[in-house]
Amino acid sequence: MKNTFTPSDHQFMAKAIRLAERGIYTTSPNPRVGCVIVNHGQIVGEGFHEKAGQGHAEVHALAMAGTNAQGATAYVTLEPCSHVGRTPPCANALIDAGVSKVIAAMVDPNPHVSGRGLALLEQAGIETYSGLLEQDAKALNLGFINRMTLGFPYVRCKLAASLDGKTAMASGESQWITSKSARQDVQKLRAQSCAVITGADSVLVDNARMNVRWSELGDARLHYKEQAVRQPVRVVIDTKNRLTPDLAFFSEASPILLIRTSIENNHQWPHFVEEVILPKALNNEHVDLSALLNTLAKKEYNEVLIESGMTLAGAFIEQNLVDELVLYQAPKLMGHEGKGLLNMPFVQALSQAKTLTFSDITLVGADLKITAKFT
Amino acid sequence: MKNTFTPSDHQFMAKAIRLAERGIYTTSPNPRVGCVIVNHGQIVGEGFHEKAGQGHAEVHALAMAGTNAQGATAYVTLEPCSHVGRTPPCANALIDAGVSKVIAAMVDPNPHVSGRGLALLEQAGIETYSGLLEQDAKALNLGFINRMTLGFPYVRCKLAASLDGKTAMASGESQWITSKSARQDVQKLRAQSCAVITGADSVLVDNARMNVRWSELGDARLHYKEQAVRQPVRVVIDTKNRLTPDLAFFSEASPILLIRTSIENNHQWPHFVEEVILPKALNNEHVDLSALLNTLAKKEYNEVLIESGMTLAGAFIEQNLVDELVLYQAPKLMGHEGKGLLNMPFVQALSQAKTLTFSDITLVGADLKITAKFT
Repeated sequence: MKNTFTPSDHQFMAKAIRLAERGIYTTSPNPRVGCVIVNHGQIVGEGFHEKAGQGHAEVHALAMAGTNAQGATAYVTLEPCSHVGRTPPCANALIDAGVSKVIAAMVDPNPHVSGRGLALLEQAGIETYSGLLEQDAKALNLGFINRMTLGFPYVRCKLAASLDGKTAMASGESQWITSKSARQDVQKLRAQSCAVITGADSVLVDNARMNVRWSELGDARLHYKEQAVRQPVRVVIDTKNRLTPDLAFFSEASPILLIRTSIENNHQWPHFVEEVILPKALNNEHVDLSALLNTLAKKEYNEVLIESGMTLAGAFIEQNLVDELVLYQAPKLMGHEGKGLLNMPFVQALSQAKTLTFSDITLVGADLKITAKFT
Repeated sequence: MKNTFTPSDHQFMAKAIRLAERGIYTTSPNPRVGCVIVNHGQIVGEGFHEKAGQGHAEVHALAMAGTNAQGATAYVTLEPCSHVGRTPPCANALIDAGVSKVIAAMVDPNPHVSGRGLALLEQAGIETYSGLLEQDAKALNLGFINRMTLGFPYVRCKLAASLDGKTAMASGESQWITSKSARQDVQKLRAQSCAVITGADSVLVDNARMNVRWSELGDARLHYKEQAVRQPVRVVIDTKNRLTPDLAFFSEASPILLIRTSIENNHQWPHFVEEVILPKALNNEHVDLSALLNTLAKKEYNEVLIESGMTLAGAFIEQNLVDELVLYQAPKLMGHEGKGLLNMPFVQALSQAKTLTFSDITLVGADLKITAKFT
């Protein structure tokens, strides 16, 4: 149930959200969760979930609070779990510790268990509330929420172009359109993603590796341990079976999903490459992109990042499969002969143009970073 | 000479700058100037220049101060004039009023008179300083400064496009890419410009009128009188002599400069149309754009706004004749078949791309307004 929350409630929940954010690069497939325990107006315990299989936010906060948890209020960014997963249920831990009130920012988005944790606490005589800073809490776990409610990951498409929407000269010359700061920022987008999706062309032509380079994570290195930051699974679509194991992409020993619609050759792939055969799209020879995303959700990938050329990115956007666009714009003008940003052959009238809403605009080095959500 | 200015000095000069801004739509060909007179820490007089031929900022402020100007400090955003122009010199008025100190934000940019006003004040025993909030003062009069120092106006190019840099669909369909708010904002850009430059195509194909519509000036209407806001001179380039007097463009009775390289027909133009013959460019059939801008500066136009199609805008940018880009970006994606933003046939390598620096980013309604200066 909802409540009229006090300014102190807002402050403590905001603190719990900042704690949850510390799991941004590490918690998947689990959600990012933070917890603050307050007794007589003082924080007596705090914690966040760092990694699947390890303690949940509530468990860390309760351990810190010790006997001070008795009669205290727990602020959690997500409804405490009521089921035995990789760890015992947190609702029971809160009951056992003797807290008297639990405020959750949002209920569990999983329709099968949503509300059960709070009900369990209620039954034990604990006052429960939810909905405090709910939008901020949801923003932490867009991928987890999408996967639980829609069976799809949260799909982000990263693009980089000049102010006139060009990604390369007609000659193909494209290096260094955006600044080093922008490229470092992309590393953070990769690091927070469970998977990065690209096409065979990017691997063949640009020799892309699509990995997270710790040395380029910038200020993120102050807050995270190198070994905790995982590599996103690299998903490469190769419908024409053009990739070969000798490419640089396959020299990085981190998981790869090789997406095909058929296998026509018989390469010996490294052990970290998994081949996945998916159906073709109804109207062309490409892979069914909706089936691909569905497959990634079934593999418990929360957030995925598309980093590809204009054809694959355009196809995802044209099929309304992208939630968010992240566009880095370099303060340059390249003229009409440059290569365009998106190939969308089915957009022929202005009424078919894809519309978005700006959600964040920042300067990253010399470049503009535009984040916008599809409407 | 420069000085260590006090926090109060900064506040009074900031006030003078805000006063000067009130002339943004009306002072040309004169600069925008504000003045504050302070006696014993109290503002006793303030004024701004509203219109050429009418009183300068100092004259208004001195009239308000009366005898309180004796022994006072005058803060002026531009060095007081020392010559008899449309009105008597302000330096003499300040001397006669008995002020004891004059602080100017910047010296006169006109190399023929720069420093003379302050020298005249010094000779009369008045303490003089300059350089306080100089950058802010310069930003008020970029056009006047360019004209006085370079013999060119300040050239702004306005463009509107989707996030992928498209201005229209391949079919030509282009209406309403940006929001009503963005289009109202363009009206303000026009109103602050001495001239708007466009091409015959925009007049023929889009039936553009390029005038300032008072009803669309939004909140500017709170601060200005309708009759004070002037129409920018409409400059249309028609090298192929395709325009005819019956077009909507010629039905608005406000000054037009009709730019040609030759006259091959003999239309009877309305009285507010002035025909100007300019040389052709060295390497093509277009008009010499540098000569055009030079001509506009000689006509005392401070700021000019280019609102044209991709070919003319591209030519100005390609020839490095534009100071500032104002790009309205609608949160839309239109795909590769749409019409591009700029035609720049001579930009063939990335090293030839035009580079800018972002100076202002704001949301205007649903759209992004990007202001960037060419480097």
